[in-house]
Amino acid sequence: MSLNDGNWFTEVCDEAGTAFSLRVTRQLHTERSRYQTIEVYETSHFGNLLVLDGFVMLTARDNFIYHEMMSHPALYTHPQPKRVLVIGGGDCGCLAEVLRHGDVIAAELVELDERVTRVSEQFFPELCASNNDPRASLHFTDGVAWVAQADAGTYDIIIVDSTDPIGQAARLFQEPFYASCRRALGDAGVLVVQSESPLIHCALIHSMRAEMGKAGFQRVSTLHFPQCTYPSGWWSATLAGGERPHAEFRAADAQAKIFTTRYYNADMHRAALAQPTFMQER
Amino acid sequence: MSLNDGNWFTEVCDEAGTAFSLRVTRQLHTERSRYQTIEVYETSHFGNLLVLDGFVMLTARDNFIYHEMMSHPALYTHPQPKRVLVIGGGDCGCLAEVLRHGDVIAAELVELDERVTRVSEQFFPELCASNNDPRASLHFTDGVAWVAQADAGTYDIIIVDSTDPIGQAARLFQEPFYASCRRALGDAGVLVVQSESPLIHCALIHSMRAEMGKAGFQRVSTLHFPQCTYPSGWWSATLAGGERPHAEFRAADAQAKIFTTRYYNADMHRAALAQPTFMQER
Repeated sequence: MSLNDGNWFTEVCDEAGTAFSLRVTRQLHTERSRYQTIEVYETSHFGNLLVLDGFVMLTARDNFIYHEMMSHPALYTHPQPKRVLVIGGGDCGCLAEVLRHGDVIAAELVELDERVTRVSEQFFPELCASNNDPRASLHFTDGVAWVAQADAGTYDIIIVDSTDPIGQAARLFQEPFYASCRRALGDAGVLVVQSESPLIHCALIHSMRAEMGKAGFQRVSTLHFPQCTYPSGWWSATLAGGERPHAEFRAADAQAKIFTTRYYNADMHRAALAQPTFMQER
Repeated sequence: MSLNDGNWFTEVCDEAGTAFSLRVTRQLHTERSRYQTIEVYETSHFGNLLVLDGFVMLTARDNFIYHEMMSHPALYTHPQPKRVLVIGGGDCGCLAEVLRHGDVIAAELVELDERVTRVSEQFFPELCASNNDPRASLHFTDGVAWVAQADAGTYDIIIVDSTDPIGQAARLFQEPFYASCRRALGDAGVLVVQSESPLIHCALIHSMRAEMGKAGFQRVSTLHFPQCTYPSGWWSATLAGGERPHAEFRAADAQAKIFTTRYYNADMHRAALAQPTFMQER
């Protein structure tokens, strides 16, 4: 079958020889910001679609899995997460999940491109509904420099919600940045970084884990979850730090949480920590 | 980006408004069998690709996840699986996984279309390497009638490795077939049926679970796993029957198994049983 019937947005993943397409009903927005091309489409079945430089960032339908899994496992790994930093994540989906935790007293978002946030406020208001929470602050600047300049022990949690490891984002997958994160985190601090597809980017995941180890993180775990609109449909986040083995997260608190989630729960948290045999062997 | 550069095989999923494409280097085979169009392509990154009536059946690269998860959880749920029936599964990948279990004394494959198996023997010899195992027997006939005619208690395990619930395969998702399976299974017997995408086909999964309940299966669990080349990249299998709660599978035996797997292990088995919140709520 071909895509000649109707309008489609297609993202080619060259390193996997695959492509993923969403049927679009119209383009809602396009602009060239200082950093990148930002597009928004209305799709037939996945709600609005945000695209940066031709890569799918999120859809209204399936982003909940990614945002919940980038946030809640890290926050339930820390004994009492009060101060949270989100690097990247300009769509504000991670920030919204973080602010659901009553323990959090301050959540800072540091995104390079303010336009991503402004466009998200317009086309994904459900992700930005907490941006005016008095605990939230948004900063539009370079996240790597921000963490390098932070006082030691400033944060309990650092969430790195970045694009793929190319261009500016490549630094977010390397030891110097992880060393800054370790310094900026308190002793019980937890770092979580989006870490691409276990099937396609297995080598990258292992390189990140090694870089985190070199930066002084003794505990490193990779979480697995579906992400239907990213290459291979299977995604990961890598967790580093914490005072106890990652399997000993606050499961009772996760079970008793008073806010609602659609994917995350204590069982799914535990399940996401299981490693396929081919990942264990590497 | 468009798919104008190079040759691609594309499968459109109309009910989700998505499409998935694999870059192909050449077509290795095409034929119209009595039942369907069978095609094989060589892809750039996923090895050989088997396509039936335009739908991706498997690729050499990622079928291990599906075949392991369709087989080992069911076999480790039964106390001692000796007699196994595979319905569909003409590529023989499930049969090969079943035959890795030393307890199995007889494994029957009942596939409607003999040509699927013959084409698989030619282009996916790694999946068919156990077809001459003296415990294996292949029958090319209708699986629904086969089970309906089987003596009560003939099988310990029935694996339904079917195509999507359209045409002939629709019967494999309905109560009368499940009632036949229940009769053909011994008291400890376990049925496992491929059950499509949790994101796209959630309603179908719940309908199947209800049909299994009506057929007299008291224990029903849905297993989740990635399947990168199927729509949404996220797939499921639904397990029914058994003597004990499905969480109480033979984990010690799974941990001590002497054959190798690439995805499956006791932790991944447990993880696959966890249900996302949106599935629990339904």
